[in-house]
Amino acid sequence: MHINRIFPVLLLSGAVFTANGEVIKSPDGKVAVDFGVKDGRPVYSMTFDGKTVIKPSTLGLELAGDTDLMDGFCLKDTEVSEFDETWQPVWGETRDIRNHYNELLAHLEQPSTGRFMDIRFRVYDDGAGFRYEFPQQNNLTYFVIKEEHSQFAMDGDHTAWWIAGDYDTQEYDYTESKLSEIRGKMADAISSNASQTQFSPTGVQTSLQMKTDNGLYINLHEAALVDYSCMHLNLDDKNKVFESWLTPDAQGNKGHLQAPTHSPWRTVMVSDDARDMLSSNLILNLNDPCAYEDTSWIKPVKYVGVWWEMIGGGKQWSYTYDLPSVKLETLDYSKTKPHGQHPANNENVKKYIDFAAEHGFDQVLVEGWNIGWEDWFGKSKDYVFDFQTPYPDFDIDMLNDYARSKGVKLMMHHETSGSIRNYERHMEAAYNLMNKYGYNSVKSGYVGNMIPRGEHHYGQWLNNHYLYAVKEAAKHKIMVNAHEAVRPTGLCRTYPNLIGNESARGTEYESFAGNKPSHTTVLPFTRLQGGPMDYTPGIFEMDMKKVNPDSQGHVNSTLARQLALYVTMYSPLQMAADVPEVYNRFMDAFQFIKDVPVDWDDSRYLEAEPGQYIVAARKAKGGDDWYVGCTSAENGHESDLVLDFLDPGKKYEATIYADAPDAHYLTNPQAYKISKKKVNAKTRLKLKAAPGGGFAISIKPLD
Amino acid sequence: MHINRIFPVLLLSGAVFTANGEVIKSPDGKVAVDFGVKDGRPVYSMTFDGKTVIKPSTLGLELAGDTDLMDGFCLKDTEVSEFDETWQPVWGETRDIRNHYNELLAHLEQPSTGRFMDIRFRVYDDGAGFRYEFPQQNNLTYFVIKEEHSQFAMDGDHTAWWIAGDYDTQEYDYTESKLSEIRGKMADAISSNASQTQFSPTGVQTSLQMKTDNGLYINLHEAALVDYSCMHLNLDDKNKVFESWLTPDAQGNKGHLQAPTHSPWRTVMVSDDARDMLSSNLILNLNDPCAYEDTSWIKPVKYVGVWWEMIGGGKQWSYTYDLPSVKLETLDYSKTKPHGQHPANNENVKKYIDFAAEHGFDQVLVEGWNIGWEDWFGKSKDYVFDFQTPYPDFDIDMLNDYARSKGVKLMMHHETSGSIRNYERHMEAAYNLMNKYGYNSVKSGYVGNMIPRGEHHYGQWLNNHYLYAVKEAAKHKIMVNAHEAVRPTGLCRTYPNLIGNESARGTEYESFAGNKPSHTTVLPFTRLQGGPMDYTPGIFEMDMKKVNPDSQGHVNSTLARQLALYVTMYSPLQMAADVPEVYNRFMDAFQFIKDVPVDWDDSRYLEAEPGQYIVAARKAKGGDDWYVGCTSAENGHESDLVLDFLDPGKKYEATIYADAPDAHYLTNPQAYKISKKKVNAKTRLKLKAAPGGGFAISIKPLD
Repeated sequence: MHINRIFPVLLLSGAVFTANGEVIKSPDGKVAVDFGVKDGRPVYSMTFDGKTVIKPSTLGLELAGDTDLMDGFCLKDTEVSEFDETWQPVWGETRDIRNHYNELLAHLEQPSTGRFMDIRFRVYDDGAGFRYEFPQQNNLTYFVIKEEHSQFAMDGDHTAWWIAGDYDTQEYDYTESKLSEIRGKMADAISSNASQTQFSPTGVQTSLQMKTDNGLYINLHEAALVDYSCMHLNLDDKNKVFESWLTPDAQGNKGHLQAPTHSPWRTVMVSDDARDMLSSNLILNLNDPCAYEDTSWIKPVKYVGVWWEMIGGGKQWSYTYDLPSVKLETLDYSKTKPHGQHPANNENVKKYIDFAAEHGFDQVLVEGWNIGWEDWFGKSKDYVFDFQTPYPDFDIDMLNDYARSKGVKLMMHHETSGSIRNYERHMEAAYNLMNKYGYNSVKSGYVGNMIPRGEHHYGQWLNNHYLYAVKEAAKHKIMVNAHEAVRPTGLCRTYPNLIGNESARGTEYESFAGNKPSHTTVLPFTRLQGGPMDYTPGIFEMDMKKVNPDSQGHVNSTLARQLALYVTMYSPLQMAADVPEVYNRFMDAFQFIKDVPVDWDDSRYLEAEPGQYIVAARKAKGGDDWYVGCTSAENGHESDLVLDFLDPGKKYEATIYADAPDAHYLTNPQAYKISKKKVNAKTRLKLKAAPGGGFAISIKPLD
Repeated sequence: MHINRIFPVLLLSGAVFTANGEVIKSPDGKVAVDFGVKDGRPVYSMTFDGKTVIKPSTLGLELAGDTDLMDGFCLKDTEVSEFDETWQPVWGETRDIRNHYNELLAHLEQPSTGRFMDIRFRVYDDGAGFRYEFPQQNNLTYFVIKEEHSQFAMDGDHTAWWIAGDYDTQEYDYTESKLSEIRGKMADAISSNASQTQFSPTGVQTSLQMKTDNGLYINLHEAALVDYSCMHLNLDDKNKVFESWLTPDAQGNKGHLQAPTHSPWRTVMVSDDARDMLSSNLILNLNDPCAYEDTSWIKPVKYVGVWWEMIGGGKQWSYTYDLPSVKLETLDYSKTKPHGQHPANNENVKKYIDFAAEHGFDQVLVEGWNIGWEDWFGKSKDYVFDFQTPYPDFDIDMLNDYARSKGVKLMMHHETSGSIRNYERHMEAAYNLMNKYGYNSVKSGYVGNMIPRGEHHYGQWLNNHYLYAVKEAAKHKIMVNAHEAVRPTGLCRTYPNLIGNESARGTEYESFAGNKPSHTTVLPFTRLQGGPMDYTPGIFEMDMKKVNPDSQGHVNSTLARQLALYVTMYSPLQMAADVPEVYNRFMDAFQFIKDVPVDWDDSRYLEAEPGQYIVAARKAKGGDDWYVGCTSAENGHESDLVLDFLDPGKKYEATIYADAPDAHYLTNPQAYKISKKKVNAKTRLKLKAAPGGGFAISIKPLD
């Protein structure tokens, strides 16, 4: 149920006219946005507690083959209003989310063209968002964006945690540097990927987390990216001005728009406390309410899967080595020789089902179940998968029956190989097949270059597709977890069956080349701002050589930290990614993964500093248990926690999964110590995370 | 039922080795193809009755980012065989079609790359076809064509009937000129179109009809264009050598191929009798047999429709002028003001249904029945139509019921506006809607520039789509008549629910700017080689000003010739395109359109010269009636016919619809004379077609 309170007011106390234009303040008065039109150009600036967040910055759009929407504007009129509601997400970090902002709607006119454009600001206590709006009008109906020029002028050489701007991948390790150092560190920041297209030596991606010398945390991102191209930020590193840089289409244009319409929100989150960056709901709040009437079929998922064996273990998605070229329409797999390295087989999948059932997991993902993996990658192959035909050794009927008999579901896998037309052509049949066999969630993938050729992962064409896939899935009551899709921008509020995304460098890279130990202390500040990530934690065997003699990989984390990630990396979809054989060796630690929920009534960020550490505490949905997680970087972390979030009248038992004193992510990652302790709301806990380590705590009431 | 007789032979009498390579001859020995590898390049030449058709011409493909398949070849092996079968088309010009050829399969190797390529020739009595084949192999799996370089070297400055090469339209009037004159006449040959992209001052389209000074008729085209880009011909006018020029994709590449695969057939038809060009089945024979087991649902169609009112009459597809921009997802048409110029309304459609029922037509096409026409064109609009929602004044349920009660069907209309993803996304629902209401045929359209943007009408992406639409339609037992799609290449043999195409300048242009009077004497030599055309003849009111005061158009044909087109322009789908009010004024002439069948047991071309005249006689499918049609160009035509195709033992009555002596396409087009005459197999008929005129004859046995 939504509670709406809308107060349109003529002039709020927080809205005053200045020399520049109009000032709109956040409900608590700390955040102030100044907007006006100067020399025909829209200009805004922003402060937090009197400190500069955004210096005067211009806004506008360059059009292709048309008069730009950059200058020649006059401010016709403004509307100011306040909005305050509390809504409940279908799933989330907290049961209730308050959406409280003051709004300024500025009506601009470009007299030379007779065109109208609005800019709408919403100012929250923890930041602001703005977007361009193009009302229905006669002189602006269809138009093509050459570039959006939204500036974000920084007031200093801030420290930033950034990844390279790229039209096709976000799977980079974060670099921490001054803004002035981005150019010099760019080459080192770029690692290879299946599909990648950088555009500028100072181009970075959102969400971009920064910290100023005077103690402000500033985050730039976008919200509600719908039928528009994804925004990057290009830095003028002389002047420290970021400017929007959209993803182009195959013809180099950056968006085909039809009025009435609007851009996504451009967001600036700000606080003097890093923890506010993590607890902010600004991105979700700027998205539309849930589009579905019935959401009873959307359920958080904890799962295991046939996956790490291939990622880290050298096993194959494919079935045979016989075929230099696979034509699905004519191929008969029964005539090929299986290579015997295909774990998506009946026996192995049953083993996972048994394991999931025994330990209370909801689902079992199976990758490599369907035909076509022999030449799926890098061929720009159009008809690459049919998403319907299992390999000969995967009995889809039997395995779903078997899973059902054990109270477990199989999780579907749709790798598209970037062949979008092919996926859309088969989508309805693929979803129907899922309905037939009882699958209710799909992990989809977009590895490699796109078809239509020349389109990019983050362009308007693909963004339209990703949402199409989610909306079509909803018609089948199917939840979607899309990998290699565009970074999330809070659309899970509107479409809560978008239950996960990858859109960043996940645990899989640990098996390839390792992630920086600081990686999981940055992701919640950046990638997770837009929505949950299927990070696939829970790797207990860090030395990949022990899994696969050919591997050079090392998981840069202690085992205790792997547990903590289920708390610090919020997601309603969580995998226990390692293989049953490994978990069976560490059943005491595995207990935390079995216990930890994937949906919450409350969340608190206890300690946080980007690139250093994050400590989060969360209360189980509909329960009294609390779970605490800490992830730390190279230097480790000493926590000093007061458990004042606990019910003051209750007594609890805490089970603490901590790094052993000699633990170290590189040399001794599996050294952990489990202890129990009676705790209450007054308990003070001092805990130490090893380098690349962490801790996890489950806190259960004693009746 | 197919009768197959295959004779693989070691060496046919007609296959001998020459200095150049190997010679393969047609079954009657008249056509000879000489193929070999010379200096590492595949070379072929061709003769008819000893006269040169193709001078030595090289073959090969240029690849993108890869070693070309142009030279460095050696001829490993050849296979020679004969094939002779007679098959029955689902619909066609004749009941039986003989497919009789000698084949040469040349196995080439490119030792430097370890790659293999085959070239297969099939030599018929009326020409030859060849194609490139890429067998399954390790060193050539996925490859990208930069250009195909198949040469067709002409032995002289032939006369050609050509239209400008263009990636997006074929809707040009034909120009008759010497090859050497193409460059000089190109500018005049290009008229404006909704989407057009020329590529060369000497680029022309296939099928290209030529005539040599020594009396040979030569036609260049392609057969079985499947998942490949459409071929144009670029002329080296100094040396009179045509070379293939494929349609590029958005990135400028000309084809993404996966071995095992092959190119379409490149066809060279030849004869010293123009009539053989028209009766040839070479293109159909080079296509695969019917892909469908059940074809009982595929039926030829004669139809009228709500169409010429908009094309020629100034009426609208749209419903309102209120909307500068239409968003289907939010629009409520009931809140708009209808402009009252929308003939796809209940009352008018019922009038057409009544007319169709009274005069024995199968179907009534209704264009403009569905929402979205207010801004459908030229906007590069993605979600332009949903193909499912009728305008408020079109009661789809009532009208289909009404039609059914009268023994008539409505014909569906799907204009895509070139927005291909949108069409494919709605296709299944759109076909389901057709099934629900009882539509069994759809006229589809591809007007304007394509989405995905940068793709062309005749590129591989679109060719793949057109066939996808046909195959998906077959699953719903729906017949397809696609306008603005790629020119047909005989695929209707394999997919006989592809019952029509436009793919040339149709009658609609008469209302815009007029077609040359010679137009219909050229089309059967060119456009119709690949399959039937929905030419929409039957216009009785030639002065478009009388239909629409704003029109400057004039139909460059006499009324009698309009009747003849139902015979000379073979198609299993024929429209009587004019409006009922006009037909009611000429009911005696209209009787021929009512009588003429749309499917045939036999066809004879009695007289023919491209650009001058065509006289065809056809025998009704399953009947004893014959129908004769004559179309002529500016000079008119005097026919001298012997009706020796009639059953010698039978007596007939002929009804002759002839131009009046003073008829003229410009000044007196509606002057016709209907006479009756007893005839038999020995009757000699001398008939005169006026300038731009013709005649039509129905011949029925007297019992």
